[in-house]
Amino acid sequence: MLRVSYQDLFDALLRVLLKLELEPRPARLCAQLFADTSRDGVYSHGLNRFPRFVSMIRNGYIDIHAVPELLAASGPLERWNGKIGPGNLNAYHCMERAIALAHEHGMGCVALANTNHWMRGGSYGWQAADAGVIGVCWTNTLPNLPAWGASDPRVGNNPLVIAVPRADGHVVLDMAMSQFSYGTLASYRMRRELLPMDGGFDSSGRLTRVPGEIEASKRPLPIGFWKGSGLALMLDLLAATLSGGKATHQITADPDRENGQSQVFLAFDASALNVSSSNTPSVNAGADASRIADQIIEYFQLPPDSTGTRVRYPGYRVLTTRRDNLANGIPVEPSIWQQLDSL
Amino acid sequence: MLRVSYQDLFDALLRVLLKLELEPRPARLCAQLFADTSRDGVYSHGLNRFPRFVSMIRNGYIDIHAVPELLAASGPLERWNGKIGPGNLNAYHCMERAIALAHEHGMGCVALANTNHWMRGGSYGWQAADAGVIGVCWTNTLPNLPAWGASDPRVGNNPLVIAVPRADGHVVLDMAMSQFSYGTLASYRMRRELLPMDGGFDSSGRLTRVPGEIEASKRPLPIGFWKGSGLALMLDLLAATLSGGKATHQITADPDRENGQSQVFLAFDASALNVSSSNTPSVNAGADASRIADQIIEYFQLPPDSTGTRVRYPGYRVLTTRRDNLANGIPVEPSIWQQLDSL
Repeated sequence: MLRVSYQDLFDALLRVLLKLELEPRPARLCAQLFADTSRDGVYSHGLNRFPRFVSMIRNGYIDIHAVPELLAASGPLERWNGKIGPGNLNAYHCMERAIALAHEHGMGCVALANTNHWMRGGSYGWQAADAGVIGVCWTNTLPNLPAWGASDPRVGNNPLVIAVPRADGHVVLDMAMSQFSYGTLASYRMRRELLPMDGGFDSSGRLTRVPGEIEASKRPLPIGFWKGSGLALMLDLLAATLSGGKATHQITADPDRENGQSQVFLAFDASALNVSSSNTPSVNAGADASRIADQIIEYFQLPPDSTGTRVRYPGYRVLTTRRDNLANGIPVEPSIWQQLDSL
Repeated sequence: MLRVSYQDLFDALLRVLLKLELEPRPARLCAQLFADTSRDGVYSHGLNRFPRFVSMIRNGYIDIHAVPELLAASGPLERWNGKIGPGNLNAYHCMERAIALAHEHGMGCVALANTNHWMRGGSYGWQAADAGVIGVCWTNTLPNLPAWGASDPRVGNNPLVIAVPRADGHVVLDMAMSQFSYGTLASYRMRRELLPMDGGFDSSGRLTRVPGEIEASKRPLPIGFWKGSGLALMLDLLAATLSGGKATHQITADPDRENGQSQVFLAFDASALNVSSSNTPSVNAGADASRIADQIIEYFQLPPDSTGTRVRYPGYRVLTTRRDNLANGIPVEPSIWQQLDSL
């Protein structure tokens, strides 16, 4: 595995984006979002995903000149049209807008229609937490997950992101509603490993730990069986009704042409509620939200197991990977790294 | 199993509450919430839970005279103090407040500290949907679920409710973060049945389908293993930081003394975003949210299986049970029904 510096990765991505005729400002942000994703160890949605992103631009499924447009507003709640622009730029814009609404109103919600794959959903959670606010966002997807009790995929795996700011490291959950993503299934298959537990059904309807059998059947398991299936459905209902955009059943089932997703971005500024009154009886009232989060995480990590390892909270591994990759270079697939020259 | 009419159940509950000296108005609402819960088939949190609710009042863990108090407000975002009042009345009040904020601002969020067990969480989802808005709410709980990778319970099962209004029947998800609740484990044990899949660890750390072994070890599985464990943590972080109230680690581990929970109630009024412009390119823009939801549910329920059974969406079963129980009486445990006379 080759390791390249953050700057080299960023420069290489930027060069391709400028060649595709993105304007310099959005091109820089787009390159940064892809480079940050690889830097943080989410390789499937960083550089490794970039060639597919470029081909969707070339094939007209992403419009690089599109700029999101405000469709409707009601105080802290807004609806935007992503106009089939780059999904990561649209999502970043909408989380920025939700953060601004939270600073103005205490909370904000931006519903986005007609966008594109947002790449790494966690990016927008880190973005909110870096701005000192709680961020919650989710996206619908093409139908790629059978509901519990069904055999063909009619819900999306609809990733959900929740982020809480904390001085010692933000807590950021970024999870799809399938137990194992298609990217994870492919990784296990290429390493010739079985999944640690049943991950879906094979083509004859039996539960299996063999990743290739699930890729073939397109029947991964939802998390918690009927529960994750229900949660995926609700996230689609909320995204489609709030944005007025496409629901999962209206998105093509062809991953190479998947566009028009609907997304929701929420931000909450807990400091808007800070109470100075000393006679309030709430245990944590007036406490800094970051300090409350510290105490929760401290308790969550205990006790360490017999090897001294502590229970890991969501987002913990990102920071250790980020430090390592900034110090020692970001691991890249040599073939994909070289492919950048021809893009 | 005895079956009693809704009116008889309501009257019996109301009589006990008035004897406990609740004021007539809150007593009527409290009796209604308990009776509605049994009517809708959630027996564990209706009449069956009522004797424990009464004993918590008698033991001072619920203050029947408490009225929620506004602590801080920032436009659509409010923080309330539940003052250890009855959990279902506090939750109903806060969802009413979130609905009013949504009608005023497009969306509303009420964070509630110092409350009590809200009984059936779904009640507040149905409440929002009946008012024509999207409702989302969750509660933290005592530590009753080990995080993935941990052996002792340090997160709550933190139930999450999401409700979307629909003319043909609201879609209401009401789920805890454990695969099987303690109530469900007890039901399987009493029926001498195995769980349909592994539901937790036995006391020696092996996965098991035997409900009694999980009740003994207090190690149920989170939904989706690491995923549900992370989601439960995030829900606690949000509830504690937004409300300024207790986090799970600050709530007693004794279920008979559990109080002081923190909760969040969100409401969204999608109609605030209705766009009349005909040149908007969003697929569903301007469409009634209920109609968008109808289309999603229609697609979700297909195809019927070989017996003609359709995939069930969250909330479907509530309506069929409700109709049956209203027509034929609500099933009650004779021993608990008789116990009401002595309360």
